[in-house]
Amino acid sequence: MMKKATREQSKFHNKSLILNTIYNAKHISRADIARTTHLTRSTVSDTVSELIEEGLVAEIGYGQSAGGKPPVLLQVVDDARQIIGIDLASGEFRGALVNLRGEINERINIPIDEKSGDMALEFVYVLVEKLLAAATQPIMGIGIGAPGLMDSDEGVVLTAVNLDWQDLPLVDLLQERYDLPVYIANDSQVSALAESKFGAGDKSPNLLVVKISRGVGSGIVIDHQLYQGDKYGAGEIGHIKVEEDGELCRCGNYGCLETKISSRAIRKQAGQLLAADPDSILHEYVSPGTSVSLENVYAAYQAGDPAVTELIAAAGQDLGRSLAFIISVLNINQVIVAGSMSVFEDGLLNPALEVLRKSVLPNIAYDVQMGASVLGEEIVILGAAGLVLQHELGLL
Amino acid sequence: MMKKATREQSKFHNKSLILNTIYNAKHISRADIARTTHLTRSTVSDTVSELIEEGLVAEIGYGQSAGGKPPVLLQVVDDARQIIGIDLASGEFRGALVNLRGEINERINIPIDEKSGDMALEFVYVLVEKLLAAATQPIMGIGIGAPGLMDSDEGVVLTAVNLDWQDLPLVDLLQERYDLPVYIANDSQVSALAESKFGAGDKSPNLLVVKISRGVGSGIVIDHQLYQGDKYGAGEIGHIKVEEDGELCRCGNYGCLETKISSRAIRKQAGQLLAADPDSILHEYVSPGTSVSLENVYAAYQAGDPAVTELIAAAGQDLGRSLAFIISVLNINQVIVAGSMSVFEDGLLNPALEVLRKSVLPNIAYDVQMGASVLGEEIVILGAAGLVLQHELGLL
Repeated sequence: MMKKATREQSKFHNKSLILNTIYNAKHISRADIARTTHLTRSTVSDTVSELIEEGLVAEIGYGQSAGGKPPVLLQVVDDARQIIGIDLASGEFRGALVNLRGEINERINIPIDEKSGDMALEFVYVLVEKLLAAATQPIMGIGIGAPGLMDSDEGVVLTAVNLDWQDLPLVDLLQERYDLPVYIANDSQVSALAESKFGAGDKSPNLLVVKISRGVGSGIVIDHQLYQGDKYGAGEIGHIKVEEDGELCRCGNYGCLETKISSRAIRKQAGQLLAADPDSILHEYVSPGTSVSLENVYAAYQAGDPAVTELIAAAGQDLGRSLAFIISVLNINQVIVAGSMSVFEDGLLNPALEVLRKSVLPNIAYDVQMGASVLGEEIVILGAAGLVLQHELGLL
Repeated sequence: MMKKATREQSKFHNKSLILNTIYNAKHISRADIARTTHLTRSTVSDTVSELIEEGLVAEIGYGQSAGGKPPVLLQVVDDARQIIGIDLASGEFRGALVNLRGEINERINIPIDEKSGDMALEFVYVLVEKLLAAATQPIMGIGIGAPGLMDSDEGVVLTAVNLDWQDLPLVDLLQERYDLPVYIANDSQVSALAESKFGAGDKSPNLLVVKISRGVGSGIVIDHQLYQGDKYGAGEIGHIKVEEDGELCRCGNYGCLETKISSRAIRKQAGQLLAADPDSILHEYVSPGTSVSLENVYAAYQAGDPAVTELIAAAGQDLGRSLAFIISVLNINQVIVAGSMSVFEDGLLNPALEVLRKSVLPNIAYDVQMGASVLGEEIVILGAAGLVLQHELGLL
């Protein structure tokens, strides 16, 4: 439960503390670091020397003198390292080189079509190797976000249905192959980490991110840390049965939340609209003989198609009914919706918030703020990079 | 976010660490404490001297010699202090003197009928004073569990509908009046703390306690600590709308979980059974002209009344549908049901677990274990005492 910090832990803690302080300031002097952290001048000085030697921190000039010698100002060197962030999304694997500030230097997507098993694993190697080849700075590590259940401590993919992976020791495989630190977590979970570290949020310590794309999941940040639950499954809301005799879900069950609000579900519902109504605006966007894409739905939504607007609102209401439980349990006020469905913004979020407000105690719902993520398609990549920053540098 | 520990924090931390070590061992030597905690011999020795002086720890004899002088064994003095634990339950205020081990020395209940506002506050004073008068050891502090929303940091009752309290600074009032440390939290939340500290559970770091009595609420322990959310409302599940056009709830809304599974709801449903079926076994237990009590329902349940059994099973299924969300969000495997409804044990829990297993991914539901609390009516009192132990001694 409680343990005394060993000398090494304590050193890592102090170094992280100092690095975080420099990272969060625009620029700062050694004296101000000591004042902020309550560490001794000599600990600060020694650690800063180490950080400068590692290239993570640089002296950038002089600050205002308070009478005596003007203080030297320090800054984190944002481009000192690159991190490989990977999103094992269904349909395509996405990767990027990310700097210490969450800026993307290089972006590579590999379509994997319906590949799974060992074939899919080969695509991971290809993606990593392309990114390694493109690197312009030392690589700090590899972070991976993947749909499914990931054992983040052992580095094992417990199940990833789309990829047909079971108990795959992906972290060991990559570590041995590339001799780099590797971290993995569920894609919705790392999305929450991405919002917490690089998002537009108010940096509240607690944060809920609901990711709605082909699948539906959520990630929970408590006290600036990713909360994963007893067995890494926290936030796994996509396959909760929300309708007794609902539609068949790809998980084999019926009436899962995914069958109601995922992009697949919306495309299917829009297809039914299209078939039922010869006057639907959707016909203007969908090429005959092709299935409705989410882009088609969005175009019709933007053109003001009332049936499509209602369809999105209905998904929002379903989301709100689920949020009633999630928010009542967690009492987290900052909620961010990410994933491809987040393009509908208020069309989805307002109905959700309205249902939420009607469905729980005013005291619980009152302060909830919902917003769409601004991190776009790169949210999982950034969260995966965040895993590496957190573990390797202790950056919160 | 991260802060360097001050000398005082660090001293409290070390003292708590040592006290926890002694508390969790049957008996232990100073040398073994140093080995377990990685603290220096002299820190252990100084701190133990302090704890002995305070009467919290005693030398109880000699252990096995490992060659040299046999080591002196230490033990926590369970009765060194008493804690006042208070449960501001609806209908009656309950209090007790509790020792350091969660054993109840003295128990006092005060019926408060329908009293509220200042009158109810007077009853709190009466209860505290009766317990102070009964104390046989120095009082360490007062812990309070109350239904409603409690600001545990400021010590303010934000809302307690039954008592008609709003923004009542109860902790300040009691601290000034009795010059003792006082702590407060929601009753379901402290119930989770009680289970975590004194319950029969396997001491897993994460724990969910669902308390079903006249009201319905839950408490969440994460990593041995009470999780209260952004605004102390975490676990407030009783007033989630679970039925679109459901019954009127005392909160003013319709179809809340409370209207389906609380003891009030069950009594009401049993009353309807009674009225509808002249052959119901319930007639044997309910005196004509009186309303059905939960004891009546339990008696009929034990006698095997099929309609009553079904009614309890239906409540269990409703509970299971809510648990599907809660467990998917938290991924906590240890679930304990407390409160007066927990007497139905498997009759309530098995249908809940069955629905839960059918309603979420097998990976999430597979390891969930549900049990009825063994702490009975005293669970809130014990949890309230636990608040004091945690804050005053750092006992986890």
